Amino acid sequence: MTYPNWLSQRSHLSGGRMALSFQEQQWTFAEMNEIALEYAGKLTALGVAKESRVAILARSNPEFVFVMYGCMHVGCEMVMLNERLAPPELAYQIEDSEAEFVLVDDELKEKVKDYNPILFSSIREAVPAEFEIQHEWEKGRTISIMYTSGTTGNPKGVRQTAENHFSSAVSSALNIGISPDDVWLCSVPLFHISGFSILMRSLIYGMGVRLYEKFDAERSAKEICSGTVTHMSMVGVMLERILRNVEEASLAASPRFKAILAGGGPIPVAYIKRAEQCGIPVLQTYGMTETSSQTTTLQSADAERKIGSSGKPLFLYQVKIDGTAKAGEKGEILIHGPQVTPGYIGRFSGRKVQEEGWLHTGDVGYLDEEGFLFVVDRRSDLIVSGGENIYPAEIEKVLLAHPAVREAGVCGVPDEEWGEVPVAFVVLNESAEADELLAYCREQIASYKVPKRLSFADALPRNASNKLLRRELKLWN
Amino acid sequence: MTYPNWLSQRSHLSGGRMALSFQEQQWTFAEMNEIALEYAGKLTALGVAKESRVAILARSNPEFVFVMYGCMHVGCEMVMLNERLAPPELAYQIEDSEAEFVLVDDELKEKVKDYNPILFSSIREAVPAEFEIQHEWEKGRTISIMYTSGTTGNPKGVRQTAENHFSSAVSSALNIGISPDDVWLCSVPLFHISGFSILMRSLIYGMGVRLYEKFDAERSAKEICSGTVTHMSMVGVMLERILRNVEEASLAASPRFKAILAGGGPIPVAYIKRAEQCGIPVLQTYGMTETSSQTTTLQSADAERKIGSSGKPLFLYQVKIDGTAKAGEKGEILIHGPQVTPGYIGRFSGRKVQEEGWLHTGDVGYLDEEGFLFVVDRRSDLIVSGGENIYPAEIEKVLLAHPAVREAGVCGVPDEEWGEVPVAFVVLNESAEADELLAYCREQIASYKVPKRLSFADALPRNASNKLLRRELKLWN
Repeated sequence: MTYPNWLSQRSHLSGGRMALSFQEQQWTFAEMNEIALEYAGKLTALGVAKESRVAILARSNPEFVFVMYGCMHVGCEMVMLNERLAPPELAYQIEDSEAEFVLVDDELKEKVKDYNPILFSSIREAVPAEFEIQHEWEKGRTISIMYTSGTTGNPKGVRQTAENHFSSAVSSALNIGISPDDVWLCSVPLFHISGFSILMRSLIYGMGVRLYEKFDAERSAKEICSGTVTHMSMVGVMLERILRNVEEASLAASPRFKAILAGGGPIPVAYIKRAEQCGIPVLQTYGMTETSSQTTTLQSADAERKIGSSGKPLFLYQVKIDGTAKAGEKGEILIHGPQVTPGYIGRFSGRKVQEEGWLHTGDVGYLDEEGFLFVVDRRSDLIVSGGENIYPAEIEKVLLAHPAVREAGVCGVPDEEWGEVPVAFVVLNESAEADELLAYCREQIASYKVPKRLSFADALPRNASNKLLRRELKLWN
Repeated sequence: MTYPNWLSQRSHLSGGRMALSFQEQQWTFAEMNEIALEYAGKLTALGVAKESRVAILARSNPEFVFVMYGCMHVGCEMVMLNERLAPPELAYQIEDSEAEFVLVDDELKEKVKDYNPILFSSIREAVPAEFEIQHEWEKGRTISIMYTSGTTGNPKGVRQTAENHFSSAVSSALNIGISPDDVWLCSVPLFHISGFSILMRSLIYGMGVRLYEKFDAERSAKEICSGTVTHMSMVGVMLERILRNVEEASLAASPRFKAILAGGGPIPVAYIKRAEQCGIPVLQTYGMTETSSQTTTLQSADAERKIGSSGKPLFLYQVKIDGTAKAGEKGEILIHGPQVTPGYIGRFSGRKVQEEGWLHTGDVGYLDEEGFLFVVDRRSDLIVSGGENIYPAEIEKVLLAHPAVREAGVCGVPDEEWGEVPVAFVVLNESAEADELLAYCREQIASYKVPKRLSFADALPRNASNKLLRRELKLWN
């Protein structure tokens, strides 16, 4: 089973449409395809071939896209390196993936200098060689490999196939709709599935991508209000900053703007309501690298009724809770569908990723009577205290509901009496005392769940996709 | 490889959305699913089981939909009988398909009385039995079987799988977009792929269907102008009647209205322009029963530049011309993609439908330099005259361009001197003489292509989907 080459087909079918825009420049699908073919030739000249495994390290800019699309034409497997990682972390991924080539944006070359990298400037200057274009793409072909941020242990390299990406794009379209004039604002990293999946949707839908090198709340707010973009992906913390910009300018989203997709944990209802006031529908999503982006989404309309939920699965997907039959019972979240990775590479290649077709996420959650998913916690963050299970997210949610709190993070610390106890770190919006916040918690959750200590911070540790890193919090104690 | 049961999943994900509306009644997806489950139980009580082959004969009304959705829950294969056929034609299909059950709308029971049919009223009255719901549908599962209208020879029963229908729906969405509030007006027969594919899109997209028992130009025009519907499928001859209604009422399409999909041959540019004036984008399509609906479409914007073209393939599909490499060369049209039937049933089950993954359509056409498909003719209608190939559609197109001509049909008749010669039948808009029309032809096409005789008629012979039946024209001579 194959797909027609997405780049050629998209160029053939809607070559005149805008594919990518960056700052003041833009490229149509026909232009993108021409450039991608040229890059494919240049990469071939440098030795890259079909099925080569190629690690790429770059910032979110057009050249990164050209290189990736060139690789896709050649038919190689791309290991997407996270530019925020330290050299030893990059070394681990390059070695684990056994990448034959390391392609690097000149600015970042120091980070991978031990691996004989090919600079983007060298690719640019290469004279294209003949290559055999892949007219048909096998569904099982590995397009990308991403190392999971992995809250514990060694990162695992996740294979994402053409079918994974295609199913993900189609399922999203069946959920929120698509229109030929959609433009998706991408300020999440291209090397993460959040950003990479926007490129895949672009090719599959024939949709424009408005690319930012990094998140910019003010510019994003302006584009949302002027209607130059129709969709945006982000994590909760970015949302608040955008809303503030929209509100301060006394503006509202353009009627052309359709939705913000927000991942990385539940969004406070207060934000959703503020977004609504601004005319911005917010869809909360749950997904991971192993599911090539979102698996469930919560519609704006359900946000208040289903606080803390990640919604329902997309059309092609199924979600169930391991070992439970009743609504409300907590357990490991299992996922089934064509978006689920067939497996890992490198040292984890022997680890089975699916059991009887179901991905074991390691996350804990439940389904309510209506089938809405609630992710209670990442299993690895579970705090066990005096035999009771404590889920940090539950405590954070309570703290976040306090008007003085902007961000909250909770983790477990060892305790002689209880084994483990929760402690909290908070970033404030306005002045408040720790006692006041703890008293506030005490009103709403069982006493064993109330943090034993609460400290203030200027910021919380987050990874490149802005997910809270609770294991880092542990080091703060 | 499986899909989640489309009926259950759609009910789960958007149960509150409108699924079907008919006259003054309407049903949500949750209601439709409840009814379908009840019908599945009733059918089970009557002996229908998973993989039973069930022939269904009915008019386009909600009960027909209930029966079909019930069959889909049970997991049986539906042979879609055309209610306009005569009893011997129906007998052929029932026998060829070896249908175990014949389900019939009470009004039509006489037509299949020799086959021990189960009346819809008996299904309605049955007491539902327990049945095993199909939670997962195999991609290769046969959902529907349709006999091709086949311009010559015995009709062939075409298998349409879940994957065929899914790919068709997704490819259409990737072409024209989808939105959760779309409503597709269906006045083409449900037993044909044109109508049945609207139901499949409804389930896959979560889209409403506005069902008409039969085509009604006046009501259709009203709904298009009031915005109660967003899409409509039709053949060219219906388009003109709708446009007349819109024009006479000095109205225009609602901004909510998105597109008319028009199959069954090229639409005169004059119609496309009139439609544009009315705010109605018209997409001309090319497809067949073997491709589970459209394979190529021509956008409104290209209609004038590419007169007579059927456009470009949808995203997942490929089209090529057998044995040719150069643009403009005529030959048999070949189609590749997941929408292509895996094969026929009954007496044609041994006939290979694909050769190395390509469907041989029997239609003749060419691709221009930009890759636009032009269907020159159905191969079986080819007229060979003095060694020259004559394509009836080419002559019809010329006649249709004359302001006095509303419809035109051309076929070959035996001729002592030339083997075969073309003759024409014309339905007039305003008075005109045959000599005048033939002189008009002579100005535009080679003399051997000019019809040897031109007669006037009140209407031309068309099948249930309004396709011109040239083989019937032959009998008029």
